[in-house]
Amino acid sequence: MSGTLKVAALQAGFGADIAANIQTVIDLTEAAGAEGAGIVLPPELFQGPYFCKTQDEAWFEHAFPALQHPCVTALQPVSKRLNVAIPVSIYEKDGPEYYNSIVMLDGGEPLGVYRKSHIPDGPGYQEKFYFRPGDTGFKVWDTRHGKVGVGICWDQWFPEAARAMALAGAEILLYPTAIGSEPHDGGLDTAARWRRVMQGHAVANVMPVVAANRIGDEDGQVFYGTSFIADHAGEIVADLGREEAGVITAAFDRDFLTRHRAAWGFFRDRRTALYR
Amino acid sequence: MSGTLKVAALQAGFGADIAANIQTVIDLTEAAGAEGAGIVLPPELFQGPYFCKTQDEAWFEHAFPALQHPCVTALQPVSKRLNVAIPVSIYEKDGPEYYNSIVMLDGGEPLGVYRKSHIPDGPGYQEKFYFRPGDTGFKVWDTRHGKVGVGICWDQWFPEAARAMALAGAEILLYPTAIGSEPHDGGLDTAARWRRVMQGHAVANVMPVVAANRIGDEDGQVFYGTSFIADHAGEIVADLGREEAGVITAAFDRDFLTRHRAAWGFFRDRRTALYR
Repeated sequence: MSGTLKVAALQAGFGADIAANIQTVIDLTEAAGAEGAGIVLPPELFQGPYFCKTQDEAWFEHAFPALQHPCVTALQPVSKRLNVAIPVSIYEKDGPEYYNSIVMLDGGEPLGVYRKSHIPDGPGYQEKFYFRPGDTGFKVWDTRHGKVGVGICWDQWFPEAARAMALAGAEILLYPTAIGSEPHDGGLDTAARWRRVMQGHAVANVMPVVAANRIGDEDGQVFYGTSFIADHAGEIVADLGREEAGVITAAFDRDFLTRHRAAWGFFRDRRTALYR
Repeated sequence: MSGTLKVAALQAGFGADIAANIQTVIDLTEAAGAEGAGIVLPPELFQGPYFCKTQDEAWFEHAFPALQHPCVTALQPVSKRLNVAIPVSIYEKDGPEYYNSIVMLDGGEPLGVYRKSHIPDGPGYQEKFYFRPGDTGFKVWDTRHGKVGVGICWDQWFPEAARAMALAGAEILLYPTAIGSEPHDGGLDTAARWRRVMQGHAVANVMPVVAANRIGDEDGQVFYGTSFIADHAGEIVADLGREEAGVITAAFDRDFLTRHRAAWGFFRDRRTALYR
């Protein structure tokens, strides 16, 4: 468990050209690798526009079996060459079932798949039309760069998901994201509360939290970026603005985190019999 | 459920004279009532100094049966006269068992007792010596001013406690508190993360959160105040400084909170089978 967790979050806008989107992620991943990152987090569903804004069956043709997904096959050699772990967010097809998933790559090797457990549904975010709720349960990946828990977007609002990953041994929590304006609710801007709830997970589990969001105006749906890395006290140690593409990185002492987490006593004092 | 939640948090320092401490809370409660508050939250264990700094058996004599506790009997007529709900934090003796508890008063009537579920233990906070872990489970009180969940201090760090109270129907979460400097850890100041974790509960449960802390230097243990009221998005709408005694209040629209909480879909989308 000793050593350093070196993590990066990528932020960019994505359009209709999947090859261009993949190249954007490769370029940013190389920049992250050059800064020494061992764990690199791209945003959610970077394969294209955030298609869940409306319900359109044409998009089901953009799902692929996990290990054959073009985003996975393109990033595998990058993950190997840079020796980095990358949770690659994909639209996954498994026979007649479709999921919002990540494939965790580590040094080019796929360690497995996590399927988004919590599926949102509301104006602008019609995910229940496109995705079956995940059946994998929460997962922690023992990568060569640290034990990594990954939740996908809407998962990030649920303290239970963060806790489940912490209990499974995560040292850091990653959240690929696609979130922006709420067309149904006028000027509602959820960026501040989006950060707050994840800063809360960091404090409650005494571990860093990383969120990577997209930017850009997609037919009036404006993604608010503001990707960030928070430390074990929920303090934001690196972040990006609402409109800039780029990479942020941070490094954390694994021994300190393990010791400090134990000393805080949250995992000593949980009263599981009282929780329903 | 319609109407307004009008809530107040009280902040003060407390010394060895229990009568003076009670009078301090009565004075602040009257100020809160004059500002229209229906729910009034004093800090934790205002009966005296925060005795858990060390392990000293003399303090067991300062515990009393819940309904005979001098803080409860003194505040009952105040609760009735002002028609306010007050969770009165006490050191409770129940035969040979001792608890860190609150008695919920509503218009002078005691609605019951909640016993602190999570008991901290560490340098400066020797609570496992003084308190048996609570056996009541988390409770929500249907007061005439709203449905109120109350956690006590260390409970506030646990997302599970907040969620349990939300699932039991709480519209607002209250946390009486005694927290300050960490003598074992040099300059460690936990005030920022203390706020963050509760702001996270507000977002995750789409409901206001109120924390009332004490102030003052008690033999080198400095309580950091910074009591606050956060809205349903975790935004702090009222707060106090690190050294001032006083009252803060806020009002919330119950119908809006109920509707907005439903629209956010967290309680629709929880995957209880996946949480351990």
